[in-house]
Order: sequence, then structure tokens, then C-alpha cells
Amino acid sequence: MNRFFSDNAAAACPAVIEAIAAANRLDSAYDGDQWSARLNAAFGQVFEREVEALWVTTGTAANSIGLAMMCPPTGAILCHRDAHIENDEAGAPAMYNGGAKLMLLDGPGAKVSPAVAEGACARIRPDVHQIQPAALSITNATEYGLTYSAEETAALGDFAKARGLGFHLDGARFANAVVSTGASPADLTWRAGVDVLSFGFVKNGGMNAEALIFFDTALADKAKVLRKRSGHLLSKGRYLAAQLLAMLDGNVWLDNARSANAAAQVLAEAAGTRLVHPVEANELFVRMTPAEAAAVRAQGFDFYDWAPGEVRLVTSWDQDMDAVAKLAVAIGAL
Amino acid sequence: MNRFFSDNAAAACPAVIEAIAAANRLDSAYDGDQWSARLNAAFGQVFEREVEALWVTTGTAANSIGLAMMCPPTGAILCHRDAHIENDEAGAPAMYNGGAKLMLLDGPGAKVSPAVAEGACARIRPDVHQIQPAALSITNATEYGLTYSAEETAALGDFAKARGLGFHLDGARFANAVVSTGASPADLTWRAGVDVLSFGFVKNGGMNAEALIFFDTALADKAKVLRKRSGHLLSKGRYLAAQLLAMLDGNVWLDNARSANAAAQVLAEAAGTRLVHPVEANELFVRMTPAEAAAVRAQGFDFYDWAPGEVRLVTSWDQDMDAVAKLAVAIGAL
Amino acid sequence: MNRFFSDNAAAACPAVIEAIAAANRLDSAYDGDQWSARLNAAFGQVFEREVEALWVTTGTAANSIGLAMMCPPTGAILCHRDAHIENDEAGAPAMYNGGAKLMLLDGPGAKVSPAVAEGACARIRPDVHQIQPAALSITNATEYGLTYSAEETAALGDFAKARGLGFHLDGARFANAVVSTGASPADLTWRAGVDVLSFGFVKNGGMNAEALIFFDTALADKAKVLRKRSGHLLSKGRYLAAQLLAMLDGNVWLDNARSANAAAQVLAEAAGTRLVHPVEANELFVRMTPAEAAAVRAQGFDFYDWAPGEVRLVTSWDQDMDAVAKLAVAIGAL
Amino acid sequence: MNRFFSDNAAAACPAVIEAIAAANRLDSAYDGDQWSARLNAAFGQVFEREVEALWVTTGTAANSIGLAMMCPPTGAILCHRDAHIENDEAGAPAMYNGGAKLMLLDGPGAKVSPAVAEGACARIRPDVHQIQPAALSITNATEYGLTYSAEETAALGDFAKARGLGFHLDGARFANAVVSTGASPADLTWRAGVDVLSFGFVKNGGMNAEALIFFDTALADKAKVLRKRSGHLLSKGRYLAAQLLAMLDGNVWLDNARSANAAAQVLAEAAGTRLVHPVEANELFVRMTPAEAAAVRAQGFDFYDWAPGEVRLVTSWDQDMDAVAKLAVAIGAL
Repeated sequence: MNRFFSDNAAAACPAVIEAIAAANRLDSAYDGDQWSARLNAAFGQVFEREVEALWVTTGTAANSIGLAMMCPPTGAILCHRDAHIENDEAGAPAMYNGGAKLMLLDGPGAKVSPAVAEGACARIRPDVHQIQPAALSITNATEYGLTYSAEETAALGDFAKARGLGFHLDGARFANAVVSTGASPADLTWRAGVDVLSFGFVKNGGMNAEALIFFDTALADKAKVLRKRSGHLLSKGRYLAAQLLAMLDGNVWLDNARSANAAAQVLAEAAGTRLVHPVEANELFVRMTPAEAAAVRAQGFDFYDWAPGEVRLVTSWDQDMDAVAKLAVAIGAL
Repeated sequence: MNRFFSDNAAAACPAVIEAIAAANRLDSAYDGDQWSARLNAAFGQVFEREVEALWVTTGTAANSIGLAMMCPPTGAILCHRDAHIENDEAGAPAMYNGGAKLMLLDGPGAKVSPAVAEGACARIRPDVHQIQPAALSITNATEYGLTYSAEETAALGDFAKARGLGFHLDGARFANAVVSTGASPADLTWRAGVDVLSFGFVKNGGMNAEALIFFDTALADKAKVLRKRSGHLLSKGRYLAAQLLAMLDGNVWLDNARSANAAAQVLAEAAGTRLVHPVEANELFVRMTPAEAAAVRAQGFDFYDWAPGEVRLVTSWDQDMDAVAKLAVAIGAL
Repeated sequence: MNRFFSDNAAAACPAVIEAIAAANRLDSAYDGDQWSARLNAAFGQVFEREVEALWVTTGTAANSIGLAMMCPPTGAILCHRDAHIENDEAGAPAMYNGGAKLMLLDGPGAKVSPAVAEGACARIRPDVHQIQPAALSITNATEYGLTYSAEETAALGDFAKARGLGFHLDGARFANAVVSTGASPADLTWRAGVDVLSFGFVKNGGMNAEALIFFDTALADKAKVLRKRSGHLLSKGRYLAAQLLAMLDGNVWLDNARSANAAAQVLAEAAGTRLVHPVEANELFVRMTPAEAAAVRAQGFDFYDWAPGEVRLVTSWDQDMDAVAKLAVAIGAL
Repeated sequence: MNRFFSDNAAAACPAVIEAIAAANRLDSAYDGDQWSARLNAAFGQVFEREVEALWVTTGTAANSIGLAMMCPPTGAILCHRDAHIENDEAGAPAMYNGGAKLMLLDGPGAKVSPAVAEGACARIRPDVHQIQPAALSITNATEYGLTYSAEETAALGDFAKARGLGFHLDGARFANAVVSTGASPADLTWRAGVDVLSFGFVKNGGMNAEALIFFDTALADKAKVLRKRSGHLLSKGRYLAAQLLAMLDGNVWLDNARSANAAAQVLAEAAGTRLVHPVEANELFVRMTPAEAAAVRAQGFDFYDWAPGEVRLVTSWDQDMDAVAKLAVAIGAL
């Protein structure tokens, strides 16, 4: 059975397993070890500037800690109605910042536009009775597999700055977005006004380490306190730091994303007009009747039913390209 | 340099590394995998009854999630003044349950007695102006390396039941307590009235997996929601579950604790009357002048200064017994 | 200048002022006084059953305390997108229950229907990743001056019970709804499945006392704790209790609402097809161009601009009916 | 029966009742009315400088809002073990600021000294594992009826500044302290380094209005948001503002406190060596055996049993001096 359920289902890549074994020795606890000490420099190279980089174990933690640095309990976070922070994190952002509200925006493909965001802000009276926007959060690649270009991100950054909002990027699939857009990590983030990035590694071949990147480095000290307070400061942080370093080293993170995106493109071509959204990363949303889906599954593939008449396929860094080719044939034959 | 700083500094044991490698394959995300599915049964064997067992990555998360199941925002958790939840978790319990108070108790060696706990409760007026106790939390082995016997635990359990309090056991070094007391895991927990156990593995040779055990299994469903909401539901939970299973298998957890405790006993004998507390687990608090401490360090050992004229030594599962012997000589020679 | 801004702008009615003066004597503090002691019985008569009645000073406090009894931090409260708890309480419900989410529903006139509410629930996956609905909150009369009949309320009550949701009624203008629908207080609340009612008095001629009514009386003890914890247990509660008793006595509350509703009806007839919503209580939303609004204002009346081309008029218990008649003429003449 | 239970039990003074009646007219809602608009100036005169003054209805709300402006969820508030915020506010400070800790200090008469406070701070490691102090809160007059002089307050202010802590003064009985010490309101507050004052009126003859005074006026805007979010922005704020203005006008607040303090002094002289604490305000703690207390009560007086062999007497602004004289005789005769 070939599974296209989720990139969370995939194994960790060899570089990660090796790095963990290599880090398996006595060192200082928490983030006092030699691997953790190298994170700022390693991510600084990726982003062509000084950054503060913290390991955490989940994207939910990264998002919630990052957003809590920018939004008080009395504020609101602007995000898309289909954002992961709204739909799939059980209210974690509100737990971390003391009850802040998510102010939901519409837009095709889970993408936010400056005009829609501005419209939402304009409807808020600037008084104590209404919750005032404090931050903007977008996801790149989005929950529907679309990407924001550097220019689109910068336009949102301009909006955020004009409104005095913090700007957070949920990059659970940031690697896929970098590969897909061809833009530099810097252009997709701080040069476009992003203050905080949740930089995903787990869906891209990591085991259990994500990175929380502060371009506004003044926020990092408080973030470290909240990481501890939320129970996310692991005793043996070296095993997380080592994973991140291993995936940055030699650009494993880009190679992995390239593989996943390529597999998705093979399937996208086969799906053609069945696609609900353009395929710009490693997720496909494909129109299929229940009978069609059953026919494909009967050939040894599995995936989620997403909505009536629609399935979701996610490709991973280690997708068997032969299986992908066969699935493409199966889809094309519908 | 031989380091006796902390059992958090030690490496993960071979069984853990092997288990992680063996689990490195595609499976369902979150806790839907085959390893996570086996946790309840595996811990059920250890405790001789049905339990609900959840993996988390830190003791702070285990403690905070467990306590939040027993104490509302308006309640208080009774604990020792030197408890880890009071001193070393940055207020995590209050973050998780919405602001509950820790009501601090005194007692030698960080141990709580029913009489002291009852005295604290008796001072609270049962009205809306005062925070009412809702839970009792103890640590076994304690922060000063002492243990509670099964009988002592049961006496506290009786107190908790009489007062209608939930009973939580912080078992960051539960393995060391089991080995030291010779009592069964069941006798040290649910048979003594414990509702929730934070069962530590990381200090005992694990990498980044702890277990949160519910004997009151009705609490587990809400705990799973809070685990997610707090960002502690890892995408690839299989790597945590596999660690726990590997350490339970063949009683690695007991062997590791036995090693650490044995090393501590060697040092305890050497320290003799210098000991501040009896040594019942793997921690030693030893009176040394700064000059004496310097003399020991000069022979290649390192450890924390704990208080003026007092140092702390912690032994680990993988302590080099030759080094321990040499350190014992060094201490004995002071 | 005759002002139709808000029923919050009106004075307190004579019965309230007299009651406060009469209560101005030494008595027990907090809610231990003789007036507070009579609240349950007095409201029990209104609702034809046993209730627990707590005074608070604001509708925001009543709503937030009431909702916190029904929705955990990890849950969601279903309400209309235009509900006061969403738009005008600065996130108070989330502060009181530890960060719960408001799940927003659409519907004309700020009214919620069972079908829309059920649709929202049906879109939620019953897993730990998504916030699960825990309570339904409606406002009667609504923020746009419409009312729910007893039958409409009961249909929502049936939905709530079927989904296992608590049912809260924001009755900031409950008196206006009772007068308008002709239904009994019981039929508009507990007989229709309502568990908790925020029973407004301030907009209806009170000074600073609102009532929080628990039909599910088991919730009241915890509510009293939260009232204290949120700083809403006044030291001299007698002055609040006395207000409530005075307005219940002789049905002042109904008389006051009848006056306000009658004034609104006079204006509604004059406004005719300019009305944006049916006028069923004491609020009118009237289409007027800026020039028209200026013309009316020039005749000595004032009111809020609500939206482009739309103004809001609110009538109070003490509205000068001559002024109302003149305003009706002014509107009719547009 | 003459009651000496609590100054909360007393009636409101005539100036307050008259002011409420005079304010009973249509005006803008919330704090947009003419009375609220005069608060800053009126309190500015009292304190000889610019201040931001907010009305609230309880001391608990004043304390909690004020402290939340100075202490983040991750911080600690230093206060005396017997402080009202620790013992009698049901954890409100933690609810308001998201779970901050109260760090308890010892000291006779519920008074805090710089040395004790500094000792508590010095025991905190400046790392992410421990909660860092963020604010100091003292009560003047204290919960045991002692006062801080201007010099004592200034010494604590120096400590707070040196440690970078906010400085909050719980002035539930601030008027009694001003009268007792003879110091100016300015000298007891901002000139001594106080940032925020909870200025009590209710125990001193008010009905239900307290003042929250910001000397650090930059904090007031956020405080107004939290006042709303916590449900403490009353719809008809004019009735609170009018009370405060009435008690400032002609120094009613000082006259009332003078009366209460004078009554306490009469009793203090009678109690002599039976006093547990010096009597510097309007509270007395008097050693009496149960038989003695019964004998006094038999003569028509009532009061709280405070501890075994100890009773508490509180005098009010409107204490009948004949009754006080008789009680003094009764105590003297024991």
C-alpha cells in the first residue's frame, strides 16, 4: 500500500538519524550543548543575517511561542480562515498568549491579501470595546499547497508595518515554498518584513525538531522563557539541535523539499483539470467521485477524503517515484 | 573531566538509540502509530492494572498536563517548597491550568508529610475569598534524593482522599525510587492513592520521551486535548513511543536506575558525615568548603556548587565506575 | 438636545434610587446582606422555579462568568457574528474561561438558527486537533433589536441538548424581549432549554446591577468563586441587590421595557420602509443619507451613525414621548 | 448590637448618596460622562502632579488590573504572606495577568522590608527555569493595621527601582494611612517610587467605587483595555465617578478616615497590652480568651474571632462614639 496521507507519516531522513547517533554523548543539559550553540550561526547563513534560532518539537509550539511574542492577550491575530493555527492547533495560540483572538480572513487557496486584511482591520473601531489587531500570520506554502512569492510576502509586510502589526510566517512547509518560488529564504522572510518564522523540518524529513527563527532578535529572550514555561525546553536539547544542523548542512532541507515537490508535479500533471488548487508545493487537492477514489485505492494507493468529491494527496521527501508514476497513471486513467 | 552535574547531561542508552532507528519508517502521524498503540498495555504490565499512558517530551509538560486534570484555575496545588514544579518549571503548572496557585509546604529533604499538608489545608477558610486546595503533588525520589516508601505514599494518599484532593506524583526519578525502596511500581503509586504519575525516562537514559500515566483513566481524554493544545502532540510520535517501549522491555529502566543508584552509594559512603541528606537515589548533597571543592575539581571532577559550603553530585545510568571510585577516594581524602 | 444614542445613557429609575437610599445602612459585607439573601426567591417567582441569582455590575461580567461555567478553555462558544460577546466585550469570555474560542455564525438580524448552528458543528472533526463546541450563546432581544419567540428559543435549546452544548442567553434587553413577545420569562428561558441567563437591568433603568441567573443551579457555586476571582464580588453588595429587588417589585422592569418598546414603535411606524430590520424591541436601524441625518439632527435630536447610509436609534425607559413624537414627525418628513 | 466586624459593613456616607442622586441624569455611557472626565484633575490635585485615575468597583479589580500592568504571566509579584492579594482575592492577580506567581515575604505586622524583599530576589537564579520578580506590592495601612511612613515607603521604592521592579501600593485603607502618618499623599506614593495605587474608598464611606491611580501614566491606556476585558467598565460609570469626586471634595475622605482612626485609638488605649499589633489605622487585634470575648459580646458588641485567643475589631467612618466608649470600658474591665 502506497500512502499519500501526510508528510508527517514519512520516516526521518538518513542525515537526521546519523546526526542523532553522533550527538549521543554527554553534554550540557537544555540548550547549553555544543549543537544548540551553533544554531544561530547556521541559520544566519541561510538567511544572510543575524538571527536567533530556537529549537522546539512541534510547529504548534513554534507558532504559538512566536505569535505570543507579538500579540498580547487583549489583541488579535489576523490569519486565513483555513490557517493551521485556526483549524488544527486546538487553540494553542490562545493558550500561549492568554486568550488572544484569531481574526479570520477569506481568500482563495488559503492565501491572504493585503486588501482583505486591511478591510478586516478597517472594520474594527479603535476603542476598548473591540479587540485590536496586533499581528498577521500567513502560511507559506499554504494549507492548500499554494505559495506566496517574495513580492506577495513583501506586500503583506508593508501592510503589517503600516498597521503596526507583527508579521509571523508559518513555514511548516517553508522548504517547499523556497524550492517552488526560487526565491531566497531572506527574500521570503525578513526582507519582506517577516519578524518571526516557524521553520518546519519534521514534514521535510526531520524527526522531531522544528526551528523558531527570530529576525526581530529582541523577541528571543522572552521566547526562551515561554519555551520553558510551556514545557518545551527539552532536557537533552542536543538531539534536536543536531537534527536541524544536519538538515541545513549540505542543503539536505532543500533536496528533500525538491523531491517532494517533484513528486507532486508528476501527480499534478496527471490530475490536470481535476485539480482544485494550483500545485505549487507538495499537496494536491483532486476532484474524484467516491467511485473514482475507490478505483484508485484498489490499485494500492491511499489518501484522505478531504471534502465531498475531493481527495487530498501529500507527497514526501522519500516518495517512491515508481509508485508516484503508477499513481499518476491511475489518476490519468480515471 | 568527569562530570557529575546532572543526569540530564548523560547520553541516551543503546536500547533507545536502537529503538529509534527501528521505528524510522512510515507510519501514522501523531499518536496513531503502532508503537504508541502499545503503550497502555506495556505500562499496564508494569503497574499490574489498566492505565492510560501518554508520551510527552518533558517532565514539565507531564507535570503540568497531569496537574491541570486535577486542579481548576481557581484551585491550589499543595507541594513542597523545594518541588521542581515550584522552582524549576517557570510557572508551567499555572500556564496549563489557567493560573492555579502552588501552596508551599515545608519538610526535611523536600519531603511532604500528611501532618504538614493537613495543617496548610486547615488554615484555609472554605469561602470564595480564599483559594481552595485541589491537588497534592509530591516528588519521588525528591529533589534532594530522598525517597517515599509505599507506606509513606499511602499515608499521603489517605490524606488526599480525605480532603478530596487529586494526588500527583512527579516521578522524574521514579525508577531510582523503585530500585531504592524495593517497592513495586503499583505500591508506590495507585495502590497508595496516586491518580497521575509523571514517569521520567530522560534522566534515566532516555532521549526525549517521558510518560504521563493516568490511573484515573477518566482523566486521559481531556489530557490528550491539552497535550495537543499545548503543542506537545508530536507529528511523529512513534519516536517517543519507541523509546519508552525499549526502556520498559527487559527492564532496562530498572537496570539503568540501579547503576545510577549504585554509583551514588559509593560516593555516599565516602562522603559520610559530610552528607546533608541521606542518599536514597542518585543525588548527593555534600558539605565542602570552596577550598575542598577546588581540590576535588583539580583531580578532574566537576559538579554544581549548590549552596555556600555545599555541592551537589548527580550520578547517571552510564557513570564510569572507575571514575566514581576515584572520586570517592578524593572525597574521602578531604 | 434629545439623545437616542443608547439606553446606557439614560438615568436610573426612581425605584432604584429609592432602594439604594433605603439600603444605606450597616449590614454584612459582600453578599451576606439581607437584600442579597432575597434574590433567589425574588427571581424564582419571576421564573416560576428554583433559581440561583447572582448580582454583578456589568453584562460583560454576567456573560463571561456564565459562559465560563459551560465552556472549558479547550472548547468553543457558538454565537452570532454580531453578538455582543464577540464585538463589544474586548475578549472577556476568553479571559474568563482561559482562552476559549467564539465560533461565529451568520443569520439575519443577528439571529442564530438551529440549522446554521448545526452546520457549524458538523464541520468540526471530533478529534484533538480541532476545538470542540461546548456552548451556544444567543442574545434576546438581539443586537439588531429582533426577538426570539419561545418556540424559536426552544428549537435552539433542542439543538443544544442534542449536541451536548450548554445554552446561554444574553438578556441585556431581556425585559424588552419579554414585553415584545408576550411570552413568559420561563418560556423564554429554562422551559426552552436555557441553562444560564444574563438578565439585564442597567439598560432598562438600573444603575449598576445586572443579574446572572442559573437554572442549572449546580453551576452557581463555581460561578460565585469566579465572581470573586474576577473582582466582581463587591464589598457592599447590598446596593446591587436592592436595585434588582426594586425593579422586580411591582414589575417595574416590565413597565420600563414597555415604555422603551412603545417609544420605538412610534419611531418605527414613522420610519416605515427605511427600517433595516423589523423593530421588535427598543432599537431601530434606519436608512438615512448623511444629508437626511443632518436634517434630523438640526431639529434637536442625536443618535449614532451605524453604517454608511444607516443610523441607529435606541429608546429608553424614560424617553420623553413628546420628543419621540417630534422625532417621528421629523423622520416621516424626510 | 454594635458591630465592629468590618469597615465593609458600614453604610455609605451622605456625600456619596447625594452625589449619586445628583448624577442621576442622562449622560454619555461608560466613562464618557462629565464626572469621569474630571477624575484625572481631581486626583491630580490630591497628588500634586499629573495622574491617570480610573474608577473600578472593587479593590480586587484595582489591584489586579494595576499589577497586570507591571507583571507579565512569566513574572512574580513580591508581597507579604498576609497580603490581601494573596489571602483574600481568590487568585485574581493570576487571573488578570495570565498566571503570575506571588512570591511571599515574611515580616511583622504584614509589613515588608527592603532587606527581606532583597533576600527573596537574591535566591532566584536569573535563568529561564525560575520565575523572575517583576513587581513589588505593599499594603498601606497593612492588613494588621500598621502603616508605612513616607521614609519606609521610599526605601522600598529604592529597592524596587534597583531591582527593576514595578511598585504597587494596595491602598484599601490609604486614607487611614495618610491621616495616621501625617504624610502627604504624594510622599506616600509617587515621591516614594510608587507606580500604581489602588486607592480605596469603599471601606471609607464609599458605596461601590474605588480608584486606580497611575503615576506612571503610560500604563493607563492598557489598563483601560483590561478594565473593559475584565468586565469592569460599567455602562453608567457616572455613578462611580460621582462618588469619588464627592469624597475628594472638601476632603470627606480624610474626615472619614480621621473618624475611624480616632475610634480605633480609643479602643487601643483600653486594650493596652492586649494588643497584638500597634494600632496605627482602624483595625485592632486584641488578645481575649473565649470567655472574655463572650463577656464583651454579652454587652452588645460583635466582632470576628481572628485566631485562638485573639479577636479583630474594625472601626468605621460612622462609628457611634458612645458605643465605642462603652466598648472601651468593657475591654478595659476585662
